[in-house]
Amino acid sequence: MPHILILSSDAEAYRTILEATNFPDLIIEKEPTQACEIVFGAPSSIRKVLNDLPNLRWVQSMWAGVEPLLDPSLRRDYVLTNARGVFGQLMSEYIFGYLIAHERKIFHLREMQRNKEWFDFDTGTLRGKTIGLLGVGSIGAEVARTAKFFGMNVRGYTRGSEASTQVDKYYHGGELLEFVKGLDYLVGILPNTNETKKIVDKNVLNALPSHALFINVGRGSAVDEHALLEALRNNKIAGAVLDVFEQEPLPKEHPFWDTPNLTMTFHTSAPSLPEDIAKVFIENYRLYVEGKPLKYVVDFEKGY
Amino acid sequence: MPHILILSSDAEAYRTILEATNFPDLIIEKEPTQACEIVFGAPSSIRKVLNDLPNLRWVQSMWAGVEPLLDPSLRRDYVLTNARGVFGQLMSEYIFGYLIAHERKIFHLREMQRNKEWFDFDTGTLRGKTIGLLGVGSIGAEVARTAKFFGMNVRGYTRGSEASTQVDKYYHGGELLEFVKGLDYLVGILPNTNETKKIVDKNVLNALPSHALFINVGRGSAVDEHALLEALRNNKIAGAVLDVFEQEPLPKEHPFWDTPNLTMTFHTSAPSLPEDIAKVFIENYRLYVEGKPLKYVVDFEKGY
Repeated sequence: MPHILILSSDAEAYRTILEATNFPDLIIEKEPTQACEIVFGAPSSIRKVLNDLPNLRWVQSMWAGVEPLLDPSLRRDYVLTNARGVFGQLMSEYIFGYLIAHERKIFHLREMQRNKEWFDFDTGTLRGKTIGLLGVGSIGAEVARTAKFFGMNVRGYTRGSEASTQVDKYYHGGELLEFVKGLDYLVGILPNTNETKKIVDKNVLNALPSHALFINVGRGSAVDEHALLEALRNNKIAGAVLDVFEQEPLPKEHPFWDTPNLTMTFHTSAPSLPEDIAKVFIENYRLYVEGKPLKYVVDFEKGY
Repeated sequence: MPHILILSSDAEAYRTILEATNFPDLIIEKEPTQACEIVFGAPSSIRKVLNDLPNLRWVQSMWAGVEPLLDPSLRRDYVLTNARGVFGQLMSEYIFGYLIAHERKIFHLREMQRNKEWFDFDTGTLRGKTIGLLGVGSIGAEVARTAKFFGMNVRGYTRGSEASTQVDKYYHGGELLEFVKGLDYLVGILPNTNETKKIVDKNVLNALPSHALFINVGRGSAVDEHALLEALRNNKIAGAVLDVFEQEPLPKEHPFWDTPNLTMTFHTSAPSLPEDIAKVFIENYRLYVEGKPLKYVVDFEKGY
């Protein structure tokens, strides 16, 4: 019977879900032991115990991003799978919440309420706007589906894949500036890899229309933070909503905190809800006990 | 050739759209004249010239609400049609923008940014939540469709109709408190009629769960404002988002302005966009010249 270690602040919730499932038997451990062959947890916690698990065979990450486990100095003698297919709807809610907040000027209206000023000017709408998705994996596909629901035009920039049929037009490789031109909204959904580092640079920001909003929910490393700060300060673009940063938590002295046309959130665009993430584990565990190939295997070299 | 008077601050935009349309001929007037048989405009403006139009036969309102023309002392010897079918998507954007703002605590996160506090606690999601639509006309149907898109449960309360198939369960008449019980969100989309006056009263607010959010985009008259204020002050419900009020603009001294768990907007949930409203007029004008029955005719007695 496989021994599994659950590493999460929600470990009790996960244990309850796993125990309530009609499920091939396993033994749930609270601490790393010699017998553990499976770890299901948060990559930052797993990293710390990686050397205390001599019989480790499989790690199921509770997150989409697995950077803490990709350090070349760490062991790679196990199968690493990440959480996929569960964050699309949550990220879509976040992205469309902030897009509507932008169009409907909800922070501005809040100020008007504070000042007791009746402000009945017309505001904007999503319909007919053009959104550009920087990265179209399973999350991007869900964002595209939501954009179509709201009557928008959808462009996608990817390395080569054209998986989502909801994207009206795909761009690849050297077509980045063409992809960006004329967008109302640019949304970054890229993982942290060598190819994506600072892909949102001065050239990309200059190519965006001045009314454009940039949202980043992928990884902070995809943005040249200095160039973004300049673009926001000079109103080269209308604003930015950032959920991810090069350094997290963002240092107190970072100028982002009090840039007026920048809205920050705190790496919370897609909360890892135990009921979602447990499903990913259960699906993979069934494959594991049957000796079949697991889903969502991470390539240590590519990083996703 | 029919003479038409356009009464709107966007009159030029409407004139341009009508002139650019492949359209049965008409003569557009800028002032009320004896020859005018059609008025296309904002009800509050139309009311002022109602007695200067001896040959008036048809009024196409640019708004959904036509209260200014329903005063029993005013003439009713013309066909009154309102704007319908165009506000659903705009109101849906508004409603879901504020629902997501509520779940994702976006005003709270904004405060955290101001205070330079990294706040990475999980926030909520729309998925699995239950929304109750008080009124299910064409706007309610679109809100129901959007709720389903986001994976929500949908209840509808109507006088008798069950027009939208996206509503999971309908309630009528005396089932109001049953309808309200257990809702995560209650959304008012009712017109101003005798039956809807103060329908959201102390009993309804007490029947809602304490975590519930109330959004009103219909008419302010549907809410007992005193009862709502009490419910908000005593945290009987989590919050309210109001776009409409008994008196508009809301008087400066009204306590709503600085009720912390109340978010106000200014009757702007569904802007009347000329490209939308012109379509309604054009559709009806084609019927008019062919002598066919018009669409969206308002019953002066019912008020919608």
